Amino acid sequence: MNTTTPVQQLHPYYPIEAEIVGYIANRWNTLELLLMFGSGCAGIFGITFAVVKKLRPNGSTGDLLTVLWFVLCGFIHLFFEGYFAYNFRRMGGMGDLFGQLWKEYALSDSRYLTQDAFVLCMESITAVFWGPLSFVTAGFIATNHPLRYPFQMIVSLGQLYGDVLYYATSMFDHYILNLTYSRPETFYFWGYFVLMNAFWIVIPLYLLGSGVSVSWRALAALEKQDRILKAGGVNGAARANGAVYGNGSVKANGAAKKQQ
Amino acid sequence: MNTTTPVQQLHPYYPIEAEIVGYIANRWNTLELLLMFGSGCAGIFGITFAVVKKLRPNGSTGDLLTVLWFVLCGFIHLFFEGYFAYNFRRMGGMGDLFGQLWKEYALSDSRYLTQDAFVLCMESITAVFWGPLSFVTAGFIATNHPLRYPFQMIVSLGQLYGDVLYYATSMFDHYILNLTYSRPETFYFWGYFVLMNAFWIVIPLYLLGSGVSVSWRALAALEKQDRILKAGGVNGAARANGAVYGNGSVKANGAAKKQQ
Repeated sequence: MNTTTPVQQLHPYYPIEAEIVGYIANRWNTLELLLMFGSGCAGIFGITFAVVKKLRPNGSTGDLLTVLWFVLCGFIHLFFEGYFAYNFRRMGGMGDLFGQLWKEYALSDSRYLTQDAFVLCMESITAVFWGPLSFVTAGFIATNHPLRYPFQMIVSLGQLYGDVLYYATSMFDHYILNLTYSRPETFYFWGYFVLMNAFWIVIPLYLLGSGVSVSWRALAALEKQDRILKAGGVNGAARANGAVYGNGSVKANGAAKKQQ
Repeated sequence: MNTTTPVQQLHPYYPIEAEIVGYIANRWNTLELLLMFGSGCAGIFGITFAVVKKLRPNGSTGDLLTVLWFVLCGFIHLFFEGYFAYNFRRMGGMGDLFGQLWKEYALSDSRYLTQDAFVLCMESITAVFWGPLSFVTAGFIATNHPLRYPFQMIVSLGQLYGDVLYYATSMFDHYILNLTYSRPETFYFWGYFVLMNAFWIVIPLYLLGSGVSVSWRALAALEKQDRILKAGGVNGAARANGAVYGNGSVKANGAAKKQQ
């Protein structure tokens, strides 16, 4: 009689029947990994702080903090999440620092080790688009370029939407399919899955709101000024401002132009 | 001897072994359904056209087209995609117009009938956020409100990201898992899956770009004017413009203020 029993995988991830290709246990423990990750972030913050202070010594604290945020995001998206997107087929066996960090994090979400379609696609888009654009946004803020606000809005909304979907798909599987990807310990679910990702909900929401607010006021101020100048008959200046709105086929002052 | 053979489901969807709860075949055929969908879109366009022409008879063609687009999006996101999000557990058995339309579309993507986590989450977010916000954006454009551009950017990026992930997760399953959700006929894959969704790639990309462009020019014009006014010593006006940038903690003119 030939019985084929499935090989029971020995790994600490949930659901316990999850198939993790080529799994090798981490050499470093939680504390060591968190210290290394924390040191990396501190190093990025320290160097960025020094560069920004040199570039714009009189810049506001709000700008400085926003640049620090986007530079950290750039590194995490491009290199750390890019590492995952590149190695997603063999994450279970990766033993270098990033591999071990991902395997530590995956204790709260095993989808990072099981070639999940959504997680791979979202992480790839994050690495390819939001990574480089985070650096570009940081550069625009550091140099006070007008594109800082549109880019801040785009990157923040991208991060926010990806993160909401990330939470939502996991909740769907938990509540609808009764499939839980986190180990049962509070620390992993609340400390890793909820807290770590909550940063990319709260901060992007704030930066999206402030980007909308600044753009709104700039567009409104310009429109108001346009009306005042036109009422006073300063046609040259009014036309100059008209050009700002009359870009491409999206013409805000179409009606106004006909009156001139 | 008791052999349990799985009940072979009789449905036209791919993969053929897909489990579709309570499947009932459509009563209307492809042509009838496409005509009804087309009539619905034409009706929405006609009424919106009349309303916009009444509200802003001198508005530009570009604005009119953009309003038509966002109103159509609002109806599709809120009602059609909202219908799916609300009924996702029982889509296979739905026999009303929207149910039959979804079952027709699902010939190109069976995930709409199999309770797929990503598709449900993406469609729910689309219905809840991009649906109402599409109507708000259309209203802002119709009344030429300055918030039209920030909102146009937000809704367009939301649609774009959702659609890219929609394509990407399907491609992942096709190429990596060898799992195809479309029937093999060219019409379904290229006509429904690729073409129908391509609208939400091309148009949002254009509207996102034009929104960035207009915001950029407005922010740049205001900043330039601020510098000119300050150089001429018109401090009152300069301060008034400073308030535009100095919103919340995102202060663009922090350094400039110190000089005053």
